[in-house]
Amino acid sequence: MAGFHVRSVLVTGSNRGIGLELIKHFTGKLNPPEVIFATCRDPEGVRAQELKNLASKHPNVVILQLEATDSASIKSTAKKAEAHLGGTGLNLLINNAGIMPPSTLESATPEDMLSVYNTNVVGPLLVTQAFLPLLKKAALGSNQKGMSCSKAAIVNISSVLGSIEKTPELFSFVPVVSYRCSKAALNMLTKCQSMGYKQDGILCTALHPGWVKTELGNFQPNADLTVDESVSGLMKVICDLSEKHHGVLLSWEGNTLPW
Amino acid sequence: MAGFHVRSVLVTGSNRGIGLELIKHFTGKLNPPEVIFATCRDPEGVRAQELKNLASKHPNVVILQLEATDSASIKSTAKKAEAHLGGTGLNLLINNAGIMPPSTLESATPEDMLSVYNTNVVGPLLVTQAFLPLLKKAALGSNQKGMSCSKAAIVNISSVLGSIEKTPELFSFVPVVSYRCSKAALNMLTKCQSMGYKQDGILCTALHPGWVKTELGNFQPNADLTVDESVSGLMKVICDLSEKHHGVLLSWEGNTLPW
Ligand SMILES: NC(=O)c1ccc[n+]([C@@H]2O[C@H](COP(=O)([O-])OP(=O)(O)OC[C@H]3O[C@@H](n4cnc5c(N)ncnc54)[C@H](OP(=O)(O)O)[C@@H]3O)[C@@H](O)[C@H]2O)c1
Ligand SMILES: NC(=O)c1ccc[n+]([C@@H]2O[C@H](COP(=O)([O-])OP(=O)(O)OC[C@H]3O[C@@H](n4cnc5c(N)ncnc54)[C@H](OP(=O)(O)O)[C@@H]3O)[C@@H](O)[C@H]2O)c1
Repeated sequence: MAGFHVRSVLVTGSNRGIGLELIKHFTGKLNPPEVIFATCRDPEGVRAQELKNLASKHPNVVILQLEATDSASIKSTAKKAEAHLGGTGLNLLINNAGIMPPSTLESATPEDMLSVYNTNVVGPLLVTQAFLPLLKKAALGSNQKGMSCSKAAIVNISSVLGSIEKTPELFSFVPVVSYRCSKAALNMLTKCQSMGYKQDGILCTALHPGWVKTELGNFQPNADLTVDESVSGLMKVICDLSEKHHGVLLSWEGNTLPW
Repeated sequence: MAGFHVRSVLVTGSNRGIGLELIKHFTGKLNPPEVIFATCRDPEGVRAQELKNLASKHPNVVILQLEATDSASIKSTAKKAEAHLGGTGLNLLINNAGIMPPSTLESATPEDMLSVYNTNVVGPLLVTQAFLPLLKKAALGSNQKGMSCSKAAIVNISSVLGSIEKTPELFSFVPVVSYRCSKAALNMLTKCQSMGYKQDGILCTALHPGWVKTELGNFQPNADLTVDESVSGLMKVICDLSEKHHGVLLSWEGNTLPW
């Protein structure tokens, strides 16, 4: 989209996988954001090395610590981001952090169910609550008509595995019951956010990145897509998002998926 | 349906509300079940008095303690039920226990989100895991063709508030974010169970009881339906359930609701 410009973006779980690739693609844009908040649980750990290398080449990449299940960590990150933004708001929040441990109807335990829900649903809820004032500020400060990611938006990285309608297609292959339940709930959260934040002009959309070769759930080597292919698609979809995608689940190719 | 006969049924959260009314309706059938397991958290508490009065008049009502968030309690209940059934299986499991505390996008906390998920989703998962051997036994021991509640079935009491598609209709009136997310997840669990237990011949369906005058969430006095009206509808739907309702969400009037 001509003239599409996200001034500021924040991505959770950006030290590896799809999150890291999103940061790479944002830095590689012709008109990259002025501020790219790349958040991860352990910025000093070995698993953040690739992100740190990237940040060393791109001064607009700001690495911040964020553990998606820890309210205090999230609030402190929001304070730091606010200070960095120097009075401007946050255009785009991407709730990407997620986990997918193995889980079947037989093996699912309360611990499994609750910890996956905590990361995949409560995390995006808390992160959004903490960054809402900055998203509202971006929406208020924008003179763009309608809704878009260059104005103010929440993108929740969900999954086709959270589509109840599509469950019969893949259940026997990937049961992941705790994950499926969490992503169905994340889809509901996205719809609730789309209702609650409509009047604020904040676009809310859930995206399915495709089946991507990452370390998610430890078994994605046979996946269809490289992270580059998936994120190239996601970036195009993000760029094109508008009102008509408010409160829907879209694939990395821009197709609406059923709940 | 002529000849429809559920030999044994178990209902969670049956000391009040819709659960208690289900027990009443089962005892009032022309051909009532031989065994009606009415489970509740605190059979000795004041809130179980009405259920105890009912049981004193109906020897087929067996009150058992069951706390839906406590694995050990559930397993011990399953053992007691097995002993009672004396070698026969359980035809119908109704996961009815549920909570709906107030919860908005602003007020939702991790504690709220996790405790509602624990009761409304993890509970039905654990109860089903524990009673699965008895449900399988009922399916195996039946000479009925196809699927039905008189053979072997799991009915999860869900809600239209868990329908992502229908969220725009009622969100501003009843946000209950933690509840909505939990019921969307319960709908997914129902679909997963329908996939996983199909080969065992166990019917799995989610039911929406309508908006019913109970104490759920402390604000149902203005609800559309009395418990008797809702449960009369639910009983008819339960009686008519077959393969074509496997893995779907039906209203108390028998209409399919969208995810
Ligand atoms: N890969 C696929 O095929 C696929 C398909 C559909 C949807 N998705 C979704 O895409 C998103 C990214 O997944 P991915 O494939 O890139 O997985 P990944 O390679 O396993 O990366 C997951 C990321 O999330 C982070 N994370 C996990 N728990 C966290 C927490 N509590 N707080 C903060 N960060 C946390 C991880 O950080 P650490 O390094 O600290 O663990 C890591 O950065 C997830 O939401 C996933 O459900 C992926
Ligand atoms: N009322 C409505 O309009 C409506 C609409 C849609 C769906 N529903 C669903 O219908 C079901 C029944 O609700 P209701 O309206 O009858 O509500 P209710 O009057 O509040 O009754 C809830 C029942 O669940 C039990 N319960 C709660 N937590 C439990 C736990 N951890 N373990 C075991 N039992 C537990 C309660 O027991 P205690 O007495 O021990 O608390 C009570 O027996 C719920 O799943 C609800 O979501 C209701």
